[in-house]
Amino acid sequence: MMVLITYDVNTETEDGKKRLRRVAKQCQNYGQRVQNSVFECIIDPALFKRLQAKLAEIMNKEKDSIRYYYLGDDWKKRVEHVGAKASIDIEATLIV
Amino acid sequence: MMVLITYDVNTETEDGKKRLRRVAKQCQNYGQRVQNSVFECIIDPALFKRLQAKLAEIMNKEKDSIRYYYLGDDWKKRVEHVGAKASIDIEATLIV
Repeated sequence: MMVLITYDVNTETEDGKKRLRRVAKQCQNYGQRVQNSVFECIIDPALFKRLQAKLAEIMNKEKDSIRYYYLGDDWKKRVEHVGAKASIDIEATLIV
Repeated sequence: MMVLITYDVNTETEDGKKRLRRVAKQCQNYGQRVQNSVFECIIDPALFKRLQAKLAEIMNKEKDSIRYYYLGDDWKKRVEHVGAKASIDIEATLIV
């Protein structure tokens, strides 16, 4: 199944940046990073439950939010992109 | 129809923050801001074309990206939220 994951976090703090890097690392196991905090994951339901559990551990539930959008099988025709190219990885240089 | 709009912009620059505020202002005419740069809009196709044209004017196409996800009529069962509450408006205080 295809799940769109949007992660809202304040990246003006070091802790926020770190959490975004950790969330990205988990999501990128299952799909691509289409924007800085938006991930499109192709994942089966069992693995998705594990991914959700990991993300719940990483996030700060009082400050951050995660939204999951279940896009179904015909998801490719549901998406349109405008502007700078997808699959950015602007955090990569920060990973040590 | 329901369109999810995700806007990728560098908010560490003043210009980026300004563009995000302008995009948010347009999107909030048609729906709600569910994360800092994620908007859920209920909009008819004719108005949506106008909205897209406005956003294309506001964005910096070389630096920013916008993705549109067409979620269809049964969109409410496609969405799951975790963490801090939706419908934030953290930019509001910056608008002058």
